[in-house]
Amino acid sequence: MPRPAKPGQKKIRYAVVGLGHIAQVAVLPAFAHAENSELAALISDDPEKLEKLGRRYKVKARFSYDQFEECLTSGEVDAVYIALPNHLHREYTERAARAGVHVLCEKPLAVTEEDCLAMIQVCEENGVKLMVAYRLHFEEANLKAIELVQGGKLGDPRLFDSVFTMQVKEGDIRLNPRELGGGPLYDIGVYCINAVRNLYGAEPMEVMAFSANNGERRFQQCEEMTTAILRFPGRERLASFTCSFNGADVGTYRIVGTEGELVMDPAYEYAEALTQRVTINGRTRERTFPKRDQFAPELISFSECILTGAAPEPSGWEGYADVRVIRALYRSTEIGQPVALPPFTKEDRPSLAQEIRRPAVRKPALVKTEAPSE
Amino acid sequence: MPRPAKPGQKKIRYAVVGLGHIAQVAVLPAFAHAENSELAALISDDPEKLEKLGRRYKVKARFSYDQFEECLTSGEVDAVYIALPNHLHREYTERAARAGVHVLCEKPLAVTEEDCLAMIQVCEENGVKLMVAYRLHFEEANLKAIELVQGGKLGDPRLFDSVFTMQVKEGDIRLNPRELGGGPLYDIGVYCINAVRNLYGAEPMEVMAFSANNGERRFQQCEEMTTAILRFPGRERLASFTCSFNGADVGTYRIVGTEGELVMDPAYEYAEALTQRVTINGRTRERTFPKRDQFAPELISFSECILTGAAPEPSGWEGYADVRVIRALYRSTEIGQPVALPPFTKEDRPSLAQEIRRPAVRKPALVKTEAPSE
Repeated sequence: MPRPAKPGQKKIRYAVVGLGHIAQVAVLPAFAHAENSELAALISDDPEKLEKLGRRYKVKARFSYDQFEECLTSGEVDAVYIALPNHLHREYTERAARAGVHVLCEKPLAVTEEDCLAMIQVCEENGVKLMVAYRLHFEEANLKAIELVQGGKLGDPRLFDSVFTMQVKEGDIRLNPRELGGGPLYDIGVYCINAVRNLYGAEPMEVMAFSANNGERRFQQCEEMTTAILRFPGRERLASFTCSFNGADVGTYRIVGTEGELVMDPAYEYAEALTQRVTINGRTRERTFPKRDQFAPELISFSECILTGAAPEPSGWEGYADVRVIRALYRSTEIGQPVALPPFTKEDRPSLAQEIRRPAVRKPALVKTEAPSE
Repeated sequence: MPRPAKPGQKKIRYAVVGLGHIAQVAVLPAFAHAENSELAALISDDPEKLEKLGRRYKVKARFSYDQFEECLTSGEVDAVYIALPNHLHREYTERAARAGVHVLCEKPLAVTEEDCLAMIQVCEENGVKLMVAYRLHFEEANLKAIELVQGGKLGDPRLFDSVFTMQVKEGDIRLNPRELGGGPLYDIGVYCINAVRNLYGAEPMEVMAFSANNGERRFQQCEEMTTAILRFPGRERLASFTCSFNGADVGTYRIVGTEGELVMDPAYEYAEALTQRVTINGRTRERTFPKRDQFAPELISFSECILTGAAPEPSGWEGYADVRVIRALYRSTEIGQPVALPPFTKEDRPSLAQEIRRPAVRKPALVKTEAPSE
């Protein structure tokens, strides 16, 4: 039972589920730039957030989590944007899908591969679309990097190396136990994994990781940091990255080919300009890409898919592809050995064709939420 | 039977053993800036190198390898600078030590821990001094990095990440089999290991590595590249690096602390200026250190030790400390598992106090040798 848009419908109406930091600073403001998308409902258990944000964005439809089905069946929403803690992604996706509502879900798609597969299946069976909110799949600098690498500008790409670190404050949801999707691999390691998978256009076959913990109280339930090595098939490419919740703000990657190097620094930011430095035959060209709205493009792309019936990309399988690597890395830290990954193929890869540019949003005043780091 | 300098002796007389690329571009020219050191003899099996370089540097004492003992006992040399392939370091060190001649040996000190220990022992038993040619132990930017990190400027240092890659041409001695000390870990990985050991002021307790090989003929006898993770004790610091003989020229490291980040890029070069970028609380300060002669300082420091009777640093133990890590990393690639290292302590660490500045040398014309890369 596919759920097409209504004939003549021009805008997809979204309920934003969860009104934490990312929803407030990025998702809600993005609707101003997403011409085919409309912010139609807000869902939170905090009446003050509902009231203040509802007023700010002129959204009358406001629901608690208990009223989620009421929202879904109200006839006022076509899609949900799930900005909940990682361990709730599956449940809210299933509830939405069963009500015939399309799902745009924050990354990581879920905590386990099983969860991911269940989400893909339930959306398929209920004829709703599922997209994972990989904002960098629409971002110029990261897409240009993929094009450049895939186009052979660096020669044969041989190694990828990334560092993504931030200081996460005690009490932040990112410090949840691993079973709830807490820890740096789920939250920021996923960016490194997603970047290298798409730069190489391939899936890792073997991974290894060391986690570390300095013993601080913040890190009682999840590790402080993880360093990972990934081996890719074919002519044996390697990748490594470190992600940490106890480091100064760094978010950068470097890919070295037989003939050149590409550095993105910062690489993963949405609140700053991104800089790309390419060195080929000893000649360096540096280019800065201005800060832009990276969330409106997700809404625009997903809404377009719903309106036209096209398949969303990044799909649920893209989310699954990263989660299975995260899980293999954690397994490796548990057993103290490398972990082999079963073969997996993903044909659709991000390319410059899907770039969408919208101007940066201004950071709005926060309502009862705070940034994960100082 | 200690071998002090002769009373009144002002200059230590060196035989340079091996006249390959590094000897020609760096060691021989460095004597012009090493006021307490004199180039007294040349040793090579190539008559043309002996003749041309002997004339260029006005060195009359020229010997083949077979005549090494003749050179050692000629009374014309106090020390040797060993710039031979890695697997010959031990033998030539032993021969020099037994003749009462001091040894300044290129890094890595040797191929195995056993070799390193034998070299340390033979030098001790014969009362000659042994130093390993870690040029960056006298270099301002790298020493400043150590001081800054040890001084707590980055907060608590948590992770180190380095990439060191170059293109090594087929036929180069660096592509020797591992048993002869070939491969990127011995040749350039040693820089990454040495850097992080001294930035942390600690020795790794557990290591893991993945090697890769794209199957090119160049890499029939040694791996193309290796990515390593090192775990350090105490509050569990991590380090990772990738070294490759099949990448564009990159040589950089980054150390991330709880409050800041330090990037050296390039970090390990001797033929270029080095750049250090420090970011603390979001404020970045970048400083470039001009290209200098990094080899004269080694000669000056070692000669000073011989003249005064002081203990050389970097000592043989410093060389051993790196080789045992290299060997554990190779063991890890062989068994496909992490490898634990036995406890090891090194008290003397490089500091700014040992910085020595001399102007850069000009690259001389090469005699029957070539750079390892294009």
